[in-house]
Amino acid sequence: MSLPTRITDLIVKDIRFPTSLEKDGSDAMHKSPDYSLAYVTVKTDSEIEGRGMTFTVGRGTHIVCCAVEAFKKLVVGQKLADIFGDFGQFWQSICSEDQIRWLGPEKGVTHLATAAIVNALWDLWAKMEGKPLWKLLVDMEPEKLVSTIDFRYMEDALTKQEAIELLKSRQAGKADREAELKNTGFPAYTTSCGWLDYPDDKIRKLATEAISQGMERFKMKVGGDIEDDIRRAKIFRETIGYDRLWVSFPAYTTSCGWLDYPDDKIRKLATEAISQGMERFKMKVGGDIEDDIRRAKIFRETIGYDRLWMVDANQKWEVQESIDWMKKLAPYKPLWIEEPTNPDDIMGHAAIAEALNPLGIAVATGEHCQNRVMFKQFLKAKAMQYCQIDACRVGGVNECIAIILMAAKYNIPVCPHAGGVGLCELVQHLSIFDYISVGCSLKNRTIEYADHLHEHMEAPVKIKNGCYVVPTVPGYLVGVKEEAIKQFEYPMGSEWQRMFADGTFEPDV
Amino acid sequence: MSLPTRITDLIVKDIRFPTSLEKDGSDAMHKSPDYSLAYVTVKTDSEIEGRGMTFTVGRGTHIVCCAVEAFKKLVVGQKLADIFGDFGQFWQSICSEDQIRWLGPEKGVTHLATAAIVNALWDLWAKMEGKPLWKLLVDMEPEKLVSTIDFRYMEDALTKQEAIELLKSRQAGKADREAELKNTGFPAYTTSCGWLDYPDDKIRKLATEAISQGMERFKMKVGGDIEDDIRRAKIFRETIGYDRLWVSFPAYTTSCGWLDYPDDKIRKLATEAISQGMERFKMKVGGDIEDDIRRAKIFRETIGYDRLWMVDANQKWEVQESIDWMKKLAPYKPLWIEEPTNPDDIMGHAAIAEALNPLGIAVATGEHCQNRVMFKQFLKAKAMQYCQIDACRVGGVNECIAIILMAAKYNIPVCPHAGGVGLCELVQHLSIFDYISVGCSLKNRTIEYADHLHEHMEAPVKIKNGCYVVPTVPGYLVGVKEEAIKQFEYPMGSEWQRMFADGTFEPDV
Repeated sequence: MSLPTRITDLIVKDIRFPTSLEKDGSDAMHKSPDYSLAYVTVKTDSEIEGRGMTFTVGRGTHIVCCAVEAFKKLVVGQKLADIFGDFGQFWQSICSEDQIRWLGPEKGVTHLATAAIVNALWDLWAKMEGKPLWKLLVDMEPEKLVSTIDFRYMEDALTKQEAIELLKSRQAGKADREAELKNTGFPAYTTSCGWLDYPDDKIRKLATEAISQGMERFKMKVGGDIEDDIRRAKIFRETIGYDRLWVSFPAYTTSCGWLDYPDDKIRKLATEAISQGMERFKMKVGGDIEDDIRRAKIFRETIGYDRLWMVDANQKWEVQESIDWMKKLAPYKPLWIEEPTNPDDIMGHAAIAEALNPLGIAVATGEHCQNRVMFKQFLKAKAMQYCQIDACRVGGVNECIAIILMAAKYNIPVCPHAGGVGLCELVQHLSIFDYISVGCSLKNRTIEYADHLHEHMEAPVKIKNGCYVVPTVPGYLVGVKEEAIKQFEYPMGSEWQRMFADGTFEPDV
Repeated sequence: MSLPTRITDLIVKDIRFPTSLEKDGSDAMHKSPDYSLAYVTVKTDSEIEGRGMTFTVGRGTHIVCCAVEAFKKLVVGQKLADIFGDFGQFWQSICSEDQIRWLGPEKGVTHLATAAIVNALWDLWAKMEGKPLWKLLVDMEPEKLVSTIDFRYMEDALTKQEAIELLKSRQAGKADREAELKNTGFPAYTTSCGWLDYPDDKIRKLATEAISQGMERFKMKVGGDIEDDIRRAKIFRETIGYDRLWVSFPAYTTSCGWLDYPDDKIRKLATEAISQGMERFKMKVGGDIEDDIRRAKIFRETIGYDRLWMVDANQKWEVQESIDWMKKLAPYKPLWIEEPTNPDDIMGHAAIAEALNPLGIAVATGEHCQNRVMFKQFLKAKAMQYCQIDACRVGGVNECIAIILMAAKYNIPVCPHAGGVGLCELVQHLSIFDYISVGCSLKNRTIEYADHLHEHMEAPVKIKNGCYVVPTVPGYLVGVKEEAIKQFEYPMGSEWQRMFADGTFEPDV
């Protein structure tokens, strides 16, 4: 196959999977997501194509596709040597298009679109080099790697020269770390068998399948109805036995800590969880402070103070409210407070962290953080102690590398957001690169795994013995299968047409 | 005409004006803008319609329209009593739509779309009350006004109760201030006659027209070619005489301070400007520090230290670079540094302000600031000393009121971004409301005026004696003329079809 020299076309498709029907996944802010992607194919003058995506949760995916189309003229016709010769500059040319930048700059829909395009270009580059993305990154000379980054507005956190020196200082042991990961894989845990509304047979079937594939760590969503949680918990244990971890390092369980649980249920569930090997517990907070304190007490009485215990407020609080509330919970020694307030509120998170860090409470956030300028501030301001980037919300691989490097300088572990559709396929490369070339540690790092929709991927993630198998297929996303596109392209795909016809869904647009 | 009770339809149009052809307007970041709007019409069960917009600069406007369509189902069918009965809650229901919010939240394209819809609802409300928007706001009881605001994530800056008390404390003198403005109008200056590449006849014609309309303040864009600037300056003076201000309070001139001017030209231009009554000068910085110092010296030698002198870096610098650079310019006593770095960089601006405020140098920014959470931080962190909101970038009137109230609490003057298309029509209401009900001062306040595209508006701004005439037509935007829509809707409007046919433009999508 001849190598491509220029980009001849860019195609974007709106692909949505009706995950809300099957109750796959959901969180407090996105109650009924249809996992979706704005899927970009970059065509070239050879047979090699780049495929990229951004992740969304349903409605509005076409808006991102519309933005991708608007960038098309900046990409089609470009020589690949020009793009990859100075990728930082090319990245900037998209982010700073002189009319479209008004709609951002570098945030929201236009930045999600940038991510989809940029991820496709990295996929193309990796395929041209015949390497999986992580290997392309790991093998790249520090100077070359750093040339892909737009350092504008980062220099008060990390200069280009510092980035090069940081990468060079971590060259030692790279080969060992690479060999280690190839041997063991990257630790994973699965949430796939345990969504809230799954019927018994489905749980049994999925868990049995996962075991047959070597999975040793399981996470179950809880909180809908306590009797139902217990029912599913029993099924789990009947199916996976008690030798396997139900939720394992570095996963944690929220199963015992929902807002409206009465004392007995918390005690019972936490005791059960401990008997199953659970060492980390997360409790939902923010309903009523007296109630939170009551539940915190029960937790500590039940799990003791050697096990970890975190709390999660789902962006619910004001700043001072976060501080006041958490001070009252401080005697129970939570490890972190997750998303206490609005994801744009750096100063707010910094104030919360400043008040709470001396009490031993960390702040975790980042999944909704829009770009390197915001991450820079979170890191510099000591506003996050756990950095949860999204591979598609920031502007693709270039900006992810920039953030991973900044986080390394500030000694903050990066735990990328995963799940959804396609995110696992992408994120594994970033974490493997981080471990081999930058962070050099697995401490506090893990990759979430959700066993949904991988069948539609040309190169799905592989899990073995509960770990991500280090990918070997050249590329980054690699691609979505043609059959899946025919079925799930929105709104004309055959499955959507069928579901509109039978009344399962109404068309969104 | 019967009053409407519910919304029956929502229509959005992409309307673009080919301003780049006529060289109307441009700045360092948006070199060739085609002033555009995503234009929303909210239809009701009566003949009254609400019209709203967001402003853009050309390419990408259809992306915003696409986002408006995605919100349609949240608006159509709603009872107006429900919306206006708890507008804060309704605003939140749009911003927190549980799938679309993933694309923001509350930033970029989806927030611009929110602004267009929300502005149309305010227009409708004002029309229903038979009042111009400013009067609707001014007459509203503080409790009711504050009910339109979503106070989530604001409480560390301003609580609901504080907002009510602030408004009540400024009730005294309201009637006098309203009468005063109705009598004098709101001070304006015009940039409309002086764009860079206008031919002689056009300048003469436009300036003569402006004079006949009572305009007394003129601003001329400079910096393309010095000989050309002088030529236009002469034409200006021949046309407007020397009794009128060329650029007047609170406008300032950048004409003498472009980057590559040799000493003699700066001296000559500044001397000329002084002879024309100019008291405020802005100098572009950031090319070469030695050169900036040289030009700063010339400025002060020429204009002395009693006149104001500001500098503008157009987001060019890193944070420390801004501080170092400005410290070297501090002996020349600049009033402010405008947009020293990235508009998302609160901590950066705060660090710059902290370093420079003791030297008497203020920081001005805000036009690209995305929402109340960011403004809150800029204000709390003392990161801006001049607050330049955009009526459409944040989520419409509700969020503008929130920011105006926060700015009042922190004693920061609000000078909304204007110009473009439609922005003058909107912004006048916000500034009038601010003066009568909140800020109660004209100090450091003004409204920019650009005499472009008003002919397409159903209720264009009126200028008399160089001031905005307080508008009396019920509504906010009021509307865009049908004829303009037929001509300039993109891409099917008759003017665009003509320009595609004759090769003036290529279609964008």
